[in-house]
Amino acid sequence: MKAIAVIPGKPNSAHLVETPRPTLHAGTVLVKVIRVGVDGTDREINEGLYGAAPAGADFLVLGHESFGRVVEVGPGVKKVRPGDYVVATVRRPDDCINCRAGEYDMCIAGNYTERGIKGRHGYLSEFYVEAPTYLVNVPPTLKEVGVLLEPLSIVEKGIMQAYKIQERLVWKPQRALVLGAGTVGLMATIVLRLRGLEVFTMARTPKPNRHADLVEATGARYLSSREQPVLGLDETYGRFDIIFEATGYSPLAFEAMEVFGNNGVLILSSVTGGDRHVEIPADKLNLEMVLGNKVVVGTVNANRRYFERGVVDMQRAEERWPGLLGRFITHRVQGLENYEEMIRLLNHEKSAIKIVVELGAGAQETTAKR
Amino acid sequence: MKAIAVIPGKPNSAHLVETPRPTLHAGTVLVKVIRVGVDGTDREINEGLYGAAPAGADFLVLGHESFGRVVEVGPGVKKVRPGDYVVATVRRPDDCINCRAGEYDMCIAGNYTERGIKGRHGYLSEFYVEAPTYLVNVPPTLKEVGVLLEPLSIVEKGIMQAYKIQERLVWKPQRALVLGAGTVGLMATIVLRLRGLEVFTMARTPKPNRHADLVEATGARYLSSREQPVLGLDETYGRFDIIFEATGYSPLAFEAMEVFGNNGVLILSSVTGGDRHVEIPADKLNLEMVLGNKVVVGTVNANRRYFERGVVDMQRAEERWPGLLGRFITHRVQGLENYEEMIRLLNHEKSAIKIVVELGAGAQETTAKR
Repeated sequence: MKAIAVIPGKPNSAHLVETPRPTLHAGTVLVKVIRVGVDGTDREINEGLYGAAPAGADFLVLGHESFGRVVEVGPGVKKVRPGDYVVATVRRPDDCINCRAGEYDMCIAGNYTERGIKGRHGYLSEFYVEAPTYLVNVPPTLKEVGVLLEPLSIVEKGIMQAYKIQERLVWKPQRALVLGAGTVGLMATIVLRLRGLEVFTMARTPKPNRHADLVEATGARYLSSREQPVLGLDETYGRFDIIFEATGYSPLAFEAMEVFGNNGVLILSSVTGGDRHVEIPADKLNLEMVLGNKVVVGTVNANRRYFERGVVDMQRAEERWPGLLGRFITHRVQGLENYEEMIRLLNHEKSAIKIVVELGAGAQETTAKR
Repeated sequence: MKAIAVIPGKPNSAHLVETPRPTLHAGTVLVKVIRVGVDGTDREINEGLYGAAPAGADFLVLGHESFGRVVEVGPGVKKVRPGDYVVATVRRPDDCINCRAGEYDMCIAGNYTERGIKGRHGYLSEFYVEAPTYLVNVPPTLKEVGVLLEPLSIVEKGIMQAYKIQERLVWKPQRALVLGAGTVGLMATIVLRLRGLEVFTMARTPKPNRHADLVEATGARYLSSREQPVLGLDETYGRFDIIFEATGYSPLAFEAMEVFGNNGVLILSSVTGGDRHVEIPADKLNLEMVLGNKVVVGTVNANRRYFERGVVDMQRAEERWPGLLGRFITHRVQGLENYEEMIRLLNHEKSAIKIVVELGAGAQETTAKR
């Protein structure tokens, strides 16, 4: 079968490979891939910044945002059936205490693997085989947007962790600020709106633009950082109970510390691999944190629980704003063969929100291939 | 009766006042003060940096770390009795949702008052009157160290908040770093040792010194920042599951972010009122927070719950290290009349851990005045 792979560590090495279709074993599931989303992680792996091939392989199949349909299940599999639409989680546990408890996103040992990223092939291939514990069922009503579940799971984790943390007090959050209006920022906007908050979402470009339209379709307010800096937002709109940082620009994490309210929580989700240094008002930031009993929490990856919550929130979002999630998919690459177009969009298409690769017949088929 | 007061906002205004003994009403308790601890907050109020007199008064009685004995209770009081040793909490609630729930340390509106600090007289007086809900009973076995309960409550709150927050995951903390070996740092060392952790406590001065002796008496390890910087401690000792920052030096809050472990929690407790700026590796700190699912939590003040936990931990500490807590009290000022000596020690005595004012006969008496 065909797959899109890279040579880890080698810049711009994305290429098409012909690789054996994976074999179904007892307790595993064969999934035909329908579509796969790509993001900055794929771009950076293709830039050679990180990524690791599976043991014994010299290439890594890309793709960690999957959507597919079960073709066949091995003996002993009961949780999923042929025909089911599924999304696979990304990380595979090591044997640390968190991983053993199923909280592999909180791995403490760091010996996990990640499909499409670290030590395991990803989903940009015609088929994959996986254990059912890593497959999350998606109802057919969500089949056009199920590919967004993995990025949504990242947001669900950050927000569920924040709410769990806030059980430390009597907390009735009312106002949230989302920094960034890419896929993660938009997802955070939706999840916080679904939780009933007044949401302000800030990105660089002033209105009108596609991101602003999507933000405002949820009833949130769109702000441009070119028109109004983060510092001072609290004076204009009141202090924020929750801030979700998803811009990829680390200085904002520290500016955000100045505008969140007493007992508030700041969620950091940007993977910032650069070497940026900034000067900060250390006394002031520390004092704000202390006198306001504030929390900052970093969040990465997501376990099955957060994917499952994502399915629920996708359903609620589709009910409340029909068709909105589908508008997040702005660019479709037809077929694995067009990997060069996929990379071009990833590298250069600034207007993109979510770029997906459609896998031929799989994208159109409505009945499962058995 | 006599009291030590300041004119809020006026530098070096500490003086002795003669003020009416407060009147006992229904539902309140008259307490004779035995001794009062003083700290940096009292020093800064005397420097005129903050502090507010009660409405209608032109002075503020200082003192928020109290220890006293109940003299008389008003009609309807059942929770305390004459003869009881008590410590009073500091903050008095406004009507925000947290304050109404008794979590006045998490006040969201900011209209609270604080005895000895903001809008209410403190305890550096011969007597005070208080509602029993703000009085915490201290068993007679702790009467020599009960004056340490208020600073201990600050530590209990920070650590209990951290443990509550960490219910977000499977967490078995093993190694803690305490930054600072003043009263708060030493208390944090004790509480973390009582929780079974391997503790490293860092202060500036190399061994041998009194602080190091107290740290090591608990089985913790004393480190000098002159001999070894915070950055790199993780490489020497392994990463820390908990860091408790209590140095008053804000740049350490940001250095600590580089040495705490995956899923770890950094507790900030220093009130840093200065204007210090530092350059930080923003990308790196943010990335550490995100990839490690880490939490930073600020903490200030304490409600009744944390005082009560403090009493339990004081008892456990006395059992495990008899006499250790008493060694925290390094300087005793005899009588309110010696307020100038109290201020001198506060401003200049670098070797002090806890300075207390002993209130005449009250300090020696063993039977209650009824």
